[in-house]
Amino acid sequence: MTESKESTVRLLITCPDQPGIVAAVSGFLHKKNANIIHSDQHSTDPEGGRFFMRNEFFLPGLDMDGLETLREEFTNEVSNGFIMDWSLSPVWKPKKMVILCSKVDHALMELLWRWKRGDLEADITMVISNHPDLREAVEQFVPFHYVPVGPTLRDKVAAEDKMFELMEGKADLVVLARYMQILTSDFVAKFSNHIINIHHSFLPAFVGADPYRRAYERGVKLIGATAHYVTEELDEGPIIEQDVNRVTHSHDVDDLKRLGADIERHVLARAVKWHLEDRVIVDGNKTIVFRR
Amino acid sequence: MTESKESTVRLLITCPDQPGIVAAVSGFLHKKNANIIHSDQHSTDPEGGRFFMRNEFFLPGLDMDGLETLREEFTNEVSNGFIMDWSLSPVWKPKKMVILCSKVDHALMELLWRWKRGDLEADITMVISNHPDLREAVEQFVPFHYVPVGPTLRDKVAAEDKMFELMEGKADLVVLARYMQILTSDFVAKFSNHIINIHHSFLPAFVGADPYRRAYERGVKLIGATAHYVTEELDEGPIIEQDVNRVTHSHDVDDLKRLGADIERHVLARAVKWHLEDRVIVDGNKTIVFRR
Amino acid sequence: MTESKESTVRLLITCPDQPGIVAAVSGFLHKKNANIIHSDQHSTDPEGGRFFMRNEFFLPGLDMDGLETLREEFTNEVSNGFIMDWSLSPVWKPKKMVILCSKVDHALMELLWRWKRGDLEADITMVISNHPDLREAVEQFVPFHYVPVGPTLRDKVAAEDKMFELMEGKADLVVLARYMQILTSDFVAKFSNHIINIHHSFLPAFVGADPYRRAYERGVKLIGATAHYVTEELDEGPIIEQDVNRVTHSHDVDDLKRLGADIERHVLARAVKWHLEDRVIVDGNKTIVFRR
Amino acid sequence: MTESKESTVRLLITCPDQPGIVAAVSGFLHKKNANIIHSDQHSTDPEGGRFFMRNEFFLPGLDMDGLETLREEFTNEVSNGFIMDWSLSPVWKPKKMVILCSKVDHALMELLWRWKRGDLEADITMVISNHPDLREAVEQFVPFHYVPVGPTLRDKVAAEDKMFELMEGKADLVVLARYMQILTSDFVAKFSNHIINIHHSFLPAFVGADPYRRAYERGVKLIGATAHYVTEELDEGPIIEQDVNRVTHSHDVDDLKRLGADIERHVLARAVKWHLEDRVIVDGNKTIVFRR
Repeated sequence: MTESKESTVRLLITCPDQPGIVAAVSGFLHKKNANIIHSDQHSTDPEGGRFFMRNEFFLPGLDMDGLETLREEFTNEVSNGFIMDWSLSPVWKPKKMVILCSKVDHALMELLWRWKRGDLEADITMVISNHPDLREAVEQFVPFHYVPVGPTLRDKVAAEDKMFELMEGKADLVVLARYMQILTSDFVAKFSNHIINIHHSFLPAFVGADPYRRAYERGVKLIGATAHYVTEELDEGPIIEQDVNRVTHSHDVDDLKRLGADIERHVLARAVKWHLEDRVIVDGNKTIVFRR
Repeated sequence: MTESKESTVRLLITCPDQPGIVAAVSGFLHKKNANIIHSDQHSTDPEGGRFFMRNEFFLPGLDMDGLETLREEFTNEVSNGFIMDWSLSPVWKPKKMVILCSKVDHALMELLWRWKRGDLEADITMVISNHPDLREAVEQFVPFHYVPVGPTLRDKVAAEDKMFELMEGKADLVVLARYMQILTSDFVAKFSNHIINIHHSFLPAFVGADPYRRAYERGVKLIGATAHYVTEELDEGPIIEQDVNRVTHSHDVDDLKRLGADIERHVLARAVKWHLEDRVIVDGNKTIVFRR
Repeated sequence: MTESKESTVRLLITCPDQPGIVAAVSGFLHKKNANIIHSDQHSTDPEGGRFFMRNEFFLPGLDMDGLETLREEFTNEVSNGFIMDWSLSPVWKPKKMVILCSKVDHALMELLWRWKRGDLEADITMVISNHPDLREAVEQFVPFHYVPVGPTLRDKVAAEDKMFELMEGKADLVVLARYMQILTSDFVAKFSNHIINIHHSFLPAFVGADPYRRAYERGVKLIGATAHYVTEELDEGPIIEQDVNRVTHSHDVDDLKRLGADIERHVLARAVKWHLEDRVIVDGNKTIVFRR
Repeated sequence: MTESKESTVRLLITCPDQPGIVAAVSGFLHKKNANIIHSDQHSTDPEGGRFFMRNEFFLPGLDMDGLETLREEFTNEVSNGFIMDWSLSPVWKPKKMVILCSKVDHALMELLWRWKRGDLEADITMVISNHPDLREAVEQFVPFHYVPVGPTLRDKVAAEDKMFELMEGKADLVVLARYMQILTSDFVAKFSNHIINIHHSFLPAFVGADPYRRAYERGVKLIGATAHYVTEELDEGPIIEQDVNRVTHSHDVDDLKRLGADIERHVLARAVKWHLEDRVIVDGNKTIVFRR
């Protein structure tokens, strides 16, 4: 459904499961005259498990001030009675998103084109790359910054500092669209659960470098791609989305790369879209994804 | 999740959408000390649309008498305030299911084998066929009745009367597992929205007879199957589930039948499973399916 | 495999099946010192059926003059002994391709981007549109011509004459990337089996206009797209490729359009790629597609 | 195509690629008046690579004696001129197949049912299990032998000796349909490239025990199954076929097992079918699969 975005809010909740949560939340929203548009929930176990909820609701006339009041009321009237992690996000104010890339363009261009078509609820503030090659392609859409990364750890830290400066106040989400640099722990910590990477294999198969070559050498019959949040451990973060495509003995490594690029594009685009629409909740090293 | 089925109930609701439904329902359940295990909802349009809800909840100690009381309380305390179609189904009492078939066994055996493995929440009371061929295969699982159907309409009516007699009190759901007879309007009306058929094409392509031959002649690159509720109009009822499989120029009509049989088996099994788990709500000529 | 394209040729053959065809063709190629890289064949029936063959071979030093000689030799030494339709296409000389579009850009941009990445063996000579909107996006890649089409048949003929003029000597293949005009019989005849269209449904379901709305109204659980050669009868030409994507009750018509656009992009790109690589042979109203 | 199987033969060839192979083979077959029904080939590299070919042909009146003569002629007239591994298999004489299983029945019953429907070109001579549970279900189709396996290596060797005795002259192919015992090197060597196993994960992810639990813990969004030839290294043999199915956060380990069982059934059935139809050639640790 294509909803108007004004006065529309999304409420995400994570808490220990116990009776009465839904009654409390829906009672609150009803009392405030909110009109629930979508509601999804999940419990890992009704007895002693964890409970997750996503509500999208419309509250006529709600603006940023009203939202602040609503947050206070929700705290007092609902969340204090439970042990809740929660957020209320205004749909009319899209998240700020920065894309990092290197030389290959397929994942990046897929995001930019979808965004231009109105398919991604984001404010893409910039693209940063450690290579200058894609400047022209990017600048038709958004600003491009070239931040080279030298060979030493000191160089990497300097480059990241430069990136932090560029992104200051402009990044709610960082997307690695085949960015061929490993980020420092500081970078990862700064954007915890807010960095999405696309890995070019069906994780946990082929963690690390050159997955298509290793898939070819193992003789797999399907290749895949995985979008996940970045954590300190390489390719071990919470998986948001995966997909695969069939290959045969007639495909060599270059074919796998070409066919894999199509999977990467779509898997990353779906994961980013869902994050932007507040459909993903991280639960330890796993994700709850409220797809439609 | 594998829940204990005792004291577990499913509540299905269809009503015009309006504010306060979720609050009323979840408030009621909370007051009765029910523990919600799963909850799904859908609105075609929050303003003036229709609202659909499925709740699965656990109420310690609930038995058939308690369920009757709960129904009365729900009527008085909730549903009278809205214009609701609703049902409360005890999970511990599986639906009674009758399978009709003719000569081909693949869809039938898939259902019987899944049922034997505990994958279908049903009490399969019998299989009825207009051919005697599958008696031996069926009787390892459930009773088999051979009810031949003569060539005239009068014969068909007589056969259906015989079937009604056999099914009396034993059929909450009728599944047509490649039953090669068209049912009369009376039969369809008697089990409205409770007869599931598997059609061997991707509807609405190839309505009617011999769909694999017609698919072959059209040169399609995918073949499919469709499970739907039976209505008076042939192959026009609400679709529950569909799937497809890739074919190539090297497959002839017999190959399509063979490959199609695999799709039919799975599509029918999924549709039946969802119906039995109260996941399907009919909305005019469409279905709401609360999949996981 | 990424082969060098120089001195590489593709031989396509269609003929009544009879013993000895493969021996004759492979004997000829061996005698000429050709090195077969790929070979595919298909027979509808070894007795009285039709035989189809695709050979890709490398003949060191072969140029356009040598190819002409080879054609004469093949005629004298092989094809005269059978009733063969055949062609020999130099891989080093990509086909000239023209894309027609209207206002929506997804299918068009997918082709242009893939082409820029080297994934389509074509010489895209121009894009022609009946709307000026996509000029800027296109001109980064290839020339753009705006040829408006007026409301009368006379207008349409005039527009097509203008298009013929623009395409003169520059179009071996015409691709309709969501071109929202029906071509005249003359246009279709001029490029018989060399116009590829993308239809936004899983044909033969939803022939004609507004297929996503009709899919929504029928309540299908999968939507699709179909790439086919254009013939005089609307949406009835030989199907090259089809694919589908799952949808649910929660998707409205706009969602189907958005999800369908992704299928259209990929189905059209695959069909065009296969045509350009001489993988498709038309057999009446069906296609033989020698996929890998 | 449903061909008559009499007088029909399949020729599989593996050899270093060089010019003239196809001409030599097809010339030979033509001279013998064989009518080629299907032909597939693959080269890893036309220069210095390996060449693989599958021919299915009809030679009127061919019987076992004639086949022996044909083998001698092929040796003298063709294969001696190349360095060929090759085999000529009479289609009218199906391969002898033994199935090993333990307690779970889904993969086993899928094979038996498909075989009964005529979908598997095999002579299934027996089922052997280390548990007696499935005797009744199996004996409706083929003989069942219960061969328990004790806890020590000595017990295992004794059990395998018993199995060798039972299988003597009755096993061209051994299928492990969820057989929960690791075979000794001797067993594997005795049936090199003639033992097919179904592993319940998308290899190389989750090699070893309890893959569904590990998939659940990693939070993957797709689960899979892999059919492969058994080699000495556990789960490392040449992959024949793989497939996957989507799962969500709402599925627990038991759900993954249940959904995975469907994938296992189909992946194993396809791999076995292809082996029986001589569609699979092993190339080191990979397979060439000439699918249709």
